[in-house]
Amino acid sequence: MGPRADRYPRGVGTGTSTSDPNGAGDPAAALEALRASIDNLDAAVIHLLAERFKCTQKVGALKARYGMPASDPAREARQIERLHRLARDADLDPVFAERFLNFVIEEVIRHHKALAEGVGTTSP
Amino acid sequence: MGPRADRYPRGVGTGTSTSDPNGAGDPAAALEALRASIDNLDAAVIHLLAERFKCTQKVGALKARYGMPASDPAREARQIERLHRLARDADLDPVFAERFLNFVIEEVIRHHKALAEGVGTTSP
Repeated sequence: MGPRADRYPRGVGTGTSTSDPNGAGDPAAALEALRASIDNLDAAVIHLLAERFKCTQKVGALKARYGMPASDPAREARQIERLHRLARDADLDPVFAERFLNFVIEEVIRHHKALAEGVGTTSP
Repeated sequence: MGPRADRYPRGVGTGTSTSDPNGAGDPAAALEALRASIDNLDAAVIHLLAERFKCTQKVGALKARYGMPASDPAREARQIERLHRLARDADLDPVFAERFLNFVIEEVIRHHKALAEGVGTTSP
């Protein structure tokens, strides 16, 4: 079993949340509050990625129908440059943003190739 | 140079956007519209990930201060199970959601270890 929040000291009467997310005095409650925010952000990201995949499925169907290549290096280079800029503005490591985009693009290209080869998935 | 949208037929007078995202009749404009949506969604995801990293940086500082271990397998198992459920609800491949979370967690653990070892990064 990994470490649990309740192994660490907890303030009196704070229940399941805290107004002290910086952890002064009550590390277990602070950890719990930060994790609740992380879970909310993850749920939002998952829903945005679901929406993104709806778009890329349509792109995949369009590319398959018109015989366009599954990958597009020029488009990907523009996306990476844009995400670098956005990441810097948002105070996020641009290298992480690039690795994230590459991870998503690889997944999308796998889907596009499968679609072009007529493997699995229904057409939109 | 990779394929460009303007290699494909374009409708008359559609400018840079289209109201036909399904690609009937004007594949280049449809591709462009879908890519504009993808770019918007990516910008939103990048900003959410920036916010997520602010949270995990605080978690990292807290863990380093109280000597908590950088990784927490039980917490990660709960996160994966929850993301599977959220992904299914959002019609996203649960396996992709899990791979996405693992990718982000690996990045976060790298940051936590660096913080615990006093390498780089300022404390919050």
